[in-house]
Amino acid sequence: MNILITAGGTSEKIDNVRSITNHSTGRLGKEIGEHFLANGHHLTYVTTPQAVRPKAEENLTLIEIETTKDLEAALLEQFKQQSFDGIIHSMAVSDYTTETTMSEEIFIEKLAATLAKQPALSDLTKLTEALYLSLDEIGKTSQQEKKIPSGTDRLLLFLKKNPKIIAMLKEQQPQAILVGFKLLVGVSTEELIHVGQSILAKNNCDFVLANDLEEIHGDQHKGILIDAQGQTVTAQTKNEIAQLIVKKVEEKWRN
Amino acid sequence: MNILITAGGTSEKIDNVRSITNHSTGRLGKEIGEHFLANGHHLTYVTTPQAVRPKAEENLTLIEIETTKDLEAALLEQFKQQSFDGIIHSMAVSDYTTETTMSEEIFIEKLAATLAKQPALSDLTKLTEALYLSLDEIGKTSQQEKKIPSGTDRLLLFLKKNPKIIAMLKEQQPQAILVGFKLLVGVSTEELIHVGQSILAKNNCDFVLANDLEEIHGDQHKGILIDAQGQTVTAQTKNEIAQLIVKKVEEKWRN
Repeated sequence: MNILITAGGTSEKIDNVRSITNHSTGRLGKEIGEHFLANGHHLTYVTTPQAVRPKAEENLTLIEIETTKDLEAALLEQFKQQSFDGIIHSMAVSDYTTETTMSEEIFIEKLAATLAKQPALSDLTKLTEALYLSLDEIGKTSQQEKKIPSGTDRLLLFLKKNPKIIAMLKEQQPQAILVGFKLLVGVSTEELIHVGQSILAKNNCDFVLANDLEEIHGDQHKGILIDAQGQTVTAQTKNEIAQLIVKKVEEKWRN
Repeated sequence: MNILITAGGTSEKIDNVRSITNHSTGRLGKEIGEHFLANGHHLTYVTTPQAVRPKAEENLTLIEIETTKDLEAALLEQFKQQSFDGIIHSMAVSDYTTETTMSEEIFIEKLAATLAKQPALSDLTKLTEALYLSLDEIGKTSQQEKKIPSGTDRLLLFLKKNPKIIAMLKEQQPQAILVGFKLLVGVSTEELIHVGQSILAKNNCDFVLANDLEEIHGDQHKGILIDAQGQTVTAQTKNEIAQLIVKKVEEKWRN
């Protein structure tokens, strides 16, 4: 099979020396990749600078990216060149990227200036409307600093939504068996399965691996693999999750 | 001599899976540390998980921290136990830590609710005052999420000032020769020296190494070492900077 894996965590620049990083060691992705390679499959592996990755070998193509935008561009490029049989999208992708950063002084100055132009601020609905417009204007028009100021007591960071990578995978590669990932923090098993199922349905996944940060401790890693029929299988370690995903993707590909 | 070096870059958690990271490879700190060790000095080296560091040896004590708060605690602990002859504070320390994060919908709802209580919003001064109070209340009272929401188009991150580590070093260890660092981005040499001098005066440093991100390319690393008499020496590589700092600190210690 021709397999694509994304792993690691993207980061988004705030200024030239700082960024917002999604922590992900990439260890689960590496393990999944190594299992596919061991079974003789071709692997394109997209990862981030800090993450671990499978050792170089003939069947492995490594691609390194940093931001969500980079990831989108790299994937679209690959989709032009290759047709994948399986896509394992385990990368922790930033939902947001930096729009602008400013001190509270500048923020308030800008907000006051735009609000003062509004007539009926005592009306809550109109005030809310005015606030949306002001915030949008401030977010879109403020120039990003090369290095964020350090002289203020409070800074405001505006973040705007990144493109949803998982949503475009099946559109771009309808033939591929798609495995999505969902990481939550401190929820019940029912909630985990429920959210996993909705991610699966929304993005046309064949499987979703749902896991909870509070149940990941090194190699101990509880993961629930959900399929499109709503069936679930639970694994307890990174190695078990990797074996399970490889087995399920291979099985589905054979049928 | 008994030397303390801080190196690497701190990071501040936004939620359980994301943080704001100050990029710093720690390579310059490592080089400075290795030069001090080679000259037979004792070294306490405080660094961050992603940064490179000198190889373990008898004269080296390694301490790892993540956040600015951790750094402050680790240093205060060391200052109780040890008296340092030289402190090289090269760590890239976050000026800000996360106060709270919220969607623009929630922010506007809260802001509108507090503003609507104010009588004279058409007056710009009063409006500005009301905005400061509202922002402060929202920043301080909003609970931080375990994982920031992903369903909104715009997120607002409130960041508040961290304690200034450099300001307390000479207060805590008045006998130590203190070398501060200042990284700027894309400024003139005059500006670099000017800002370096003000950092030196403000924090009672003996030396400040001022550098510009745009003049750092791997080992090529332009750095201007400024002393308390306003004299400057320029180095062109990490190795030259390290040699220069070790030489100047040793010289000052002998006199």
